[in-house]
Amino acid sequence: MNAAPVKSVTGADYYGRLQEARVAPLWRIPGTTDPEPGVAEVPHVWRWRGLEPLLHQATEVMDLGVDEADRRALNAHNPSRVFGTTHTLVAGYQLVLPGENAPAHRHSPGAIRFMLAGAGYTTVEGEPVLMEPGDLVLTPANTWHDHRHPGDEPMIWLDGLDVPFVKQMRANFYEDHPSGGLQELDKPEGYSLERYGAGLTPTADRPAHPHSPIMNYKWGTTYAALKKLAESGTDPHNGVKLEYTNPLTGGHVLPTMACYLSLLPEPTKAQRHVSSGVFCVARGSGHSIVGGERLDWDEKDFFAVPAWTWYEHVPDPDTEVVLFEMSDLPLLEPFGLQRKEKRA
Amino acid sequence: MNAAPVKSVTGADYYGRLQEARVAPLWRIPGTTDPEPGVAEVPHVWRWRGLEPLLHQATEVMDLGVDEADRRALNAHNPSRVFGTTHTLVAGYQLVLPGENAPAHRHSPGAIRFMLAGAGYTTVEGEPVLMEPGDLVLTPANTWHDHRHPGDEPMIWLDGLDVPFVKQMRANFYEDHPSGGLQELDKPEGYSLERYGAGLTPTADRPAHPHSPIMNYKWGTTYAALKKLAESGTDPHNGVKLEYTNPLTGGHVLPTMACYLSLLPEPTKAQRHVSSGVFCVARGSGHSIVGGERLDWDEKDFFAVPAWTWYEHVPDPDTEVVLFEMSDLPLLEPFGLQRKEKRA
Amino acid sequence: MNAAPVKSVTGADYYGRLQEARVAPLWRIPGTTDPEPGVAEVPHVWRWRGLEPLLHQATEVMDLGVDEADRRALNAHNPSRVFGTTHTLVAGYQLVLPGENAPAHRHSPGAIRFMLAGAGYTTVEGEPVLMEPGDLVLTPANTWHDHRHPGDEPMIWLDGLDVPFVKQMRANFYEDHPSGGLQELDKPEGYSLERYGAGLTPTADRPAHPHSPIMNYKWGTTYAALKKLAESGTDPHNGVKLEYTNPLTGGHVLPTMACYLSLLPEPTKAQRHVSSGVFCVARGSGHSIVGGERLDWDEKDFFAVPAWTWYEHVPDPDTEVVLFEMSDLPLLEPFGLQRKEKRA
Amino acid sequence: MNAAPVKSVTGADYYGRLQEARVAPLWRIPGTTDPEPGVAEVPHVWRWRGLEPLLHQATEVMDLGVDEADRRALNAHNPSRVFGTTHTLVAGYQLVLPGENAPAHRHSPGAIRFMLAGAGYTTVEGEPVLMEPGDLVLTPANTWHDHRHPGDEPMIWLDGLDVPFVKQMRANFYEDHPSGGLQELDKPEGYSLERYGAGLTPTADRPAHPHSPIMNYKWGTTYAALKKLAESGTDPHNGVKLEYTNPLTGGHVLPTMACYLSLLPEPTKAQRHVSSGVFCVARGSGHSIVGGERLDWDEKDFFAVPAWTWYEHVPDPDTEVVLFEMSDLPLLEPFGLQRKEKRA
Repeated sequence: MNAAPVKSVTGADYYGRLQEARVAPLWRIPGTTDPEPGVAEVPHVWRWRGLEPLLHQATEVMDLGVDEADRRALNAHNPSRVFGTTHTLVAGYQLVLPGENAPAHRHSPGAIRFMLAGAGYTTVEGEPVLMEPGDLVLTPANTWHDHRHPGDEPMIWLDGLDVPFVKQMRANFYEDHPSGGLQELDKPEGYSLERYGAGLTPTADRPAHPHSPIMNYKWGTTYAALKKLAESGTDPHNGVKLEYTNPLTGGHVLPTMACYLSLLPEPTKAQRHVSSGVFCVARGSGHSIVGGERLDWDEKDFFAVPAWTWYEHVPDPDTEVVLFEMSDLPLLEPFGLQRKEKRA
Repeated sequence: MNAAPVKSVTGADYYGRLQEARVAPLWRIPGTTDPEPGVAEVPHVWRWRGLEPLLHQATEVMDLGVDEADRRALNAHNPSRVFGTTHTLVAGYQLVLPGENAPAHRHSPGAIRFMLAGAGYTTVEGEPVLMEPGDLVLTPANTWHDHRHPGDEPMIWLDGLDVPFVKQMRANFYEDHPSGGLQELDKPEGYSLERYGAGLTPTADRPAHPHSPIMNYKWGTTYAALKKLAESGTDPHNGVKLEYTNPLTGGHVLPTMACYLSLLPEPTKAQRHVSSGVFCVARGSGHSIVGGERLDWDEKDFFAVPAWTWYEHVPDPDTEVVLFEMSDLPLLEPFGLQRKEKRA
Repeated sequence: MNAAPVKSVTGADYYGRLQEARVAPLWRIPGTTDPEPGVAEVPHVWRWRGLEPLLHQATEVMDLGVDEADRRALNAHNPSRVFGTTHTLVAGYQLVLPGENAPAHRHSPGAIRFMLAGAGYTTVEGEPVLMEPGDLVLTPANTWHDHRHPGDEPMIWLDGLDVPFVKQMRANFYEDHPSGGLQELDKPEGYSLERYGAGLTPTADRPAHPHSPIMNYKWGTTYAALKKLAESGTDPHNGVKLEYTNPLTGGHVLPTMACYLSLLPEPTKAQRHVSSGVFCVARGSGHSIVGGERLDWDEKDFFAVPAWTWYEHVPDPDTEVVLFEMSDLPLLEPFGLQRKEKRA
Repeated sequence: MNAAPVKSVTGADYYGRLQEARVAPLWRIPGTTDPEPGVAEVPHVWRWRGLEPLLHQATEVMDLGVDEADRRALNAHNPSRVFGTTHTLVAGYQLVLPGENAPAHRHSPGAIRFMLAGAGYTTVEGEPVLMEPGDLVLTPANTWHDHRHPGDEPMIWLDGLDVPFVKQMRANFYEDHPSGGLQELDKPEGYSLERYGAGLTPTADRPAHPHSPIMNYKWGTTYAALKKLAESGTDPHNGVKLEYTNPLTGGHVLPTMACYLSLLPEPTKAQRHVSSGVFCVARGSGHSIVGGERLDWDEKDFFAVPAWTWYEHVPDPDTEVVLFEMSDLPLLEPFGLQRKEKRA
């Protein structure tokens, strides 16, 4: 029998030295061999009923367009986080009052807007884009955009941005418009939709940017397509589901974010996937079971489905439910990181 | 000074032996060092006025659906060729009378139809596709298709196929439908247009085929888009020009053929390119100068612009001219074979 | 019972009028409903034994570099054709004597060279490329290239070009080098192979062209890889088969042509496909059954396998057979036109 | 003059309510309008001299293959972080003693190994991959891999993984091999390199995975290519630089990580970019100025260059410096998030 080798170091001493040397022993790093991702984010629903008043009160504490207050937006943060509705996406309500303008800026994070109440304009790269309830409006990464409200009712929409991801990637850049206020309009209203919205492409000036050239997907068109699609059947896990599509590639509307609209003729079966998302209730009421928790929702509410979390939707009886969804799936696809599981 | 070497063979004798050996001396093959392509095909216009009566007389000499006579089509052949309107494309008029059916078949060549008169149906893979004047209808390679005419006026359209190319590539396959007649309808009317025609994509069952999933690009939509686009200016060589687009890729409608619609607010400047095409007059009248030759045209006429041939279009004064165009550009792009020249 | 309708035209008269109108009745065009392609090209083998002397005699009837005689090449034409070894490809032997130069030119057809005898140089875009037996050398479309022979034995190689295809597409352009003779050398020998030949890519100056950046695939490397691959088994239809690959895309060496090297440990089972090809015997002897015809072959012979023609290879007993192959498969892939059948 | 409107809420009260409602006012979120990314990570160098002894002492406190201790690896964590050498990548030294084995597992993070000392084997998907100093070995995402050491000197390499990114994306999955120990060898040594390492691709069984099929880029080949490339000049910001390349795509070796080797004939000019990286000194000595801080380095040291941080390298005089680099550039490219700046 051999004598035990003489040790040159005790454990405590050794691990202290590693710490000083800015290295960690892999065999003591927690979670290294966990079979599945640990997801800190939790399911949560934000209710319109409670938040709409807070949004209006914001007009009392901040003036739009003054100092840093370029946007009157309430960002929903996951209860487990200081920032971010999920680990990659941030959603929230934004309000512009009649007569107000939100000055032009641009930034490397991309954004989508799902219109909830009132009507007004977002300007994107010189094109005035009309926003009406149910419309999806894009303000993609690095495009100049401002918001203008010539109407007479408050306009409120759901914002969706990839800021948590872009910041995490140390890739966030921001710039105010040189004008200090609004940008010039150099395109007619309806410009992008008329050029790209009908399976046709102008042969001149094909855009080189990585996002959809359509800045406004109108509710009327989208909803009609959804109803028609419903005639061809429904998917047990996703209902009747359309993706808003970049017509220049057939892919997602933004390189970082996918948007969908779903009609739910019946409760969906449970599924989970690595991609995370935020659902906004475009029409109807019901509840979802997310990570074992029941989230009740009505029109204009939105809720977070964190990564790798089981979820299913249950529309209220005799109610037409339409859900808008933003997803970070495009962040996973290039790397083969998406996984999915479905319950039968 | 050296004596000339003794030759073992005379030229005549030598070249005869090469011929027997099935080899040709490169240095005697004509055209090897020609700086530019020799194009045999010539400009030509086919006039509706003269051909429509011949199309109707065809009903006297052939019965649709009997024997090999599955289609009542007159194929325009370039005056320099036995077959083919250009070296890659064949165009022509096709007529179906009220009450007639053209039985279902499929083939490796792909086809497009630009509707000229009457109204009826083409069935594509189980979907009944309504055809009305100005519509572009696709029957892509290897799709089952038939034509049905429940209406009461003769329906006539312009056919466009890639048969000369596909035959030249020894890749033409043809199959009659097992039913011997029409295929079954298993999709509702408007199916493909409603699913893919508005910047939206169903998330289930994304097609894997290489052609556009839209089977019918409606005249109303296309023409309206063209008029709108006209407000943003015109290109001196191409006027106001839209490409019918595959919304799943942003590319051409068929892997072998591109289709365009152009509005010509003024005469275009001359251009030439390796791609060849056939233009059909959707609206208006005028003339084109093609390869130095004047081709006059009226509504429903069509004309061939051969490869590498200078051309320019001249609309008649005070006339709105809209040209439909099929082009073989997609056959050149994968190989970097397209070249273009434009006159200032 | 109805009386037969009065006909306004007789058949003969009618068809005559169609002919004048430059239209053909589809129902009388032969082959329209043929189930499979009609292939005019026939199997044929060109034997080195018979052609090598003819190649040498060519030096008696033409001087390289004089007049139009820029290349001393014998182009193998299919017995069914005036030009073209298959309908898309042309192959042939080319000879350069010691001390001779073939002046620089460039053209839109692309070319490959499979070296058979002697050693010398091809210059491609300023890079001198050493050619030794078994090497594959590329002179892609639109690259300046010349041939130089500083050695002391005649150099002979197999040419392979896509000229029949490019001419058929009316896309052939040709240009002599402005120098009138050779181009300047501005890169060292081995330049392209060292930069791209080992799974590595220089980060600066990534080429934008559509062909492989490697100009010379050396026999030693290729043959060694083939022998190694043989240890992992063989495919019953293709033996042990490698494709020469564009390391910037993982695809074919030229956009129009694919090149392969196969080791045949045993007779292959029969197959056919729409793509056509030319095989050259790099090593060994045997025969192939092509379209029912037996083609015997020895080293340096080459033979045509036309489109959609059954073929199988039978190596002679106790002989190592290596076949080089050029194929027009890349011309079919972008359009989904390839089809394959294999016998079990 | 109007009286000030009566406020329904005080600021303090209001912001408290927002907090309860899990929303944050965008106008008070710090950094929202920062023009450039705030990067928490700092420059740092890990010195071989100090860490090698710690690595050997690790053999005293942990036994390889016992319990969770599957790998004897010291993970370098950025001084600003608990985990991660940069915000996306983790690097570190790993040691296997003669006779030891590190059991097989697989995980969704991908890994690369740059070999520093000794020689041994990594098995990847059944292929034994020889590791010798200077070799780059891949163990891509979701591939079974183990390490074996039949030699007689300790083997040490630099690990590089995308774990911080994959965990941040909630996409980390881990699995021990069913055998509980090593996997079976079912491919010969040199298998992947011989199949894909020379510009050739076997026509059978083309891999569908998104990573390079070459598992071992040998130092001899890479270094020779680098020296050759040096003859063609140097880039003022990057020296002579090669990317290890996926021969099936021409792209990065892993979908999440790029690897490079650079020769530095002279000091480089300063640059910064959003992508972050870790450099390891393959040969020579010198220092880098990173974020204004001087980092001295010798052979086998490695150092972190955080995102958007200026850096330049200064080789010691009369020393050949070769740097290996791993970069997270592939994580930015799909989203258009990379930006670069260079000093002249």
